[in-house]
Amino acid sequence: MRMPTTRATSSLQMMPRFHPPYISPSDSGTTCFQATRRRLGYLERSLGNEKMVVKVYGKAQAVCPQRVMHCLVEKGVPFELVHIDIDTMEHKRPEFLQKQVALPFPFFPLYVALAFSDPVSFLSHSGRSPTSLTETWSSSVNTFSLTSCESRAIVRYLAAKYVDRGPNLLGRTLEERAKVDQWLDVEAINYNPWAFPIVFNLFVLPIRGLPANKADAGAAVDKLNKVLEVYEKQLSKTKYLAGDEFTLADLTHIPATRYIVENCGLSHLLDDKKHVKGWWEDITGRPAWKKVMSFVETGGSNYSP
Amino acid sequence: MRMPTTRATSSLQMMPRFHPPYISPSDSGTTCFQATRRRLGYLERSLGNEKMVVKVYGKAQAVCPQRVMHCLVEKGVPFELVHIDIDTMEHKRPEFLQKQVALPFPFFPLYVALAFSDPVSFLSHSGRSPTSLTETWSSSVNTFSLTSCESRAIVRYLAAKYVDRGPNLLGRTLEERAKVDQWLDVEAINYNPWAFPIVFNLFVLPIRGLPANKADAGAAVDKLNKVLEVYEKQLSKTKYLAGDEFTLADLTHIPATRYIVENCGLSHLLDDKKHVKGWWEDITGRPAWKKVMSFVETGGSNYSP
Repeated sequence: MRMPTTRATSSLQMMPRFHPPYISPSDSGTTCFQATRRRLGYLERSLGNEKMVVKVYGKAQAVCPQRVMHCLVEKGVPFELVHIDIDTMEHKRPEFLQKQVALPFPFFPLYVALAFSDPVSFLSHSGRSPTSLTETWSSSVNTFSLTSCESRAIVRYLAAKYVDRGPNLLGRTLEERAKVDQWLDVEAINYNPWAFPIVFNLFVLPIRGLPANKADAGAAVDKLNKVLEVYEKQLSKTKYLAGDEFTLADLTHIPATRYIVENCGLSHLLDDKKHVKGWWEDITGRPAWKKVMSFVETGGSNYSP
Repeated sequence: MRMPTTRATSSLQMMPRFHPPYISPSDSGTTCFQATRRRLGYLERSLGNEKMVVKVYGKAQAVCPQRVMHCLVEKGVPFELVHIDIDTMEHKRPEFLQKQVALPFPFFPLYVALAFSDPVSFLSHSGRSPTSLTETWSSSVNTFSLTSCESRAIVRYLAAKYVDRGPNLLGRTLEERAKVDQWLDVEAINYNPWAFPIVFNLFVLPIRGLPANKADAGAAVDKLNKVLEVYEKQLSKTKYLAGDEFTLADLTHIPATRYIVENCGLSHLLDDKKHVKGWWEDITGRPAWKKVMSFVETGGSNYSP
């Protein structure tokens, strides 16, 4: 018995590459709700097999996309990296701004965005019926996107969304999460304002052949060193910044610090602090981070665990 | 029938102002567990009535404590403000650093800390039995504290802890929360770096009779204006920054922006932008914010809803 043609099935028939047919003969006799659930389940499985549901927009070498990719790899979530050439300000072009993939904040050249086409989460907060969901979903790519300079908001979201996969990166209680949030803000407010001008002046501008402000870089090195002295005290008490487990608070530090250590000739800032040095070797030795580095170095576009 | 004296009751007897006696005659004949639960319930009620369980350390006029106090008032949570004189660097003294009430980050003079002595949340994550809890609790003031410059981590924690009280400030789904987190980071990373030097140079230094850097302030005004142009676009689409409900993303902007509007002669930055102006009037018209202003102006130390 064939199911009657409805708006929903018409919509699905228009979608390519759904073989075998999404409605099997055994659907006859089930309730409409059960059949719809089954169709939705098949759609989800098909998506999982055939379609990438997470897209990261950014430049592979940039700090913010690396944070997001590291979080996805820790969680074992496949993703597609959509390369954006931030050097040519591609992310400021009208087609990106119109799509609202980017928030057009001035002064901050770093860029990362994330787009989901995920029917499950869309269902959970749209309140629509599954039937209308499939139609809505088919045009919902980019419906949910997080953008521009808020890589920390993106990794917070990913760690919560995939809380049952991979390591816990957010803390298990409100109090643990508060400590993670605290050190995420420490990174954003107390660490990155000095790390950024160091990397920009001692690595990014030189490789572009542009003049750097070495005085700015020198002042930032002194300030970052004082911040790292606070880290040394913290890491003498806890194995990681927010406690005794690796969390987002550690993860967000890695990409910029790697450039400082490997490309700015400043590895001594970490090496002369016993606990910071041990922490750094630990967090950069994680298999997930090594996979990110391999992915970046080989120019990868699609990551599968 | 009197209950036998135990370590727990000894501990409770030492605590002042618990009238009537925490064990009533009707406790006779109940199981040990029921009696302990009843004693704990009475202790919690007594705490709610007679003892302040949330302490905010900071200066009432400072931006960070005002964020935290506003969140507590929105949630209807009583608190004690422990005045810290940041002008004399009281928070950098050894007795504070030893208590780890402050993380000693350099370069950031603003300060807020939060201490809980809350038997309920302590129970929920300590895994201890209620009997030992009461003993542990009695020495657990400052066991959980969030400190120094991370007012955004504190309000995130409070909004999650008191999610069932007052307005929802964090979003109801992961996607809504991600938007709130995104705009919290926008405030911290794109807005505050310009708002801070404006308030510092045009208000804080002048009232202390110290020379201000007007060039720095002028450059910051230009940059903040460009950021506010982005806000104008966002607020033409949604009533509040992260959507159509007031959230922490709006709340965190208020204290510094109030100084810019009321004390730096820069109200035109908001007034000449239709949607920003409407948003500003809306969020500063909230009863909770008005209560915070009244509390600050009257030099309050204890807030009760």
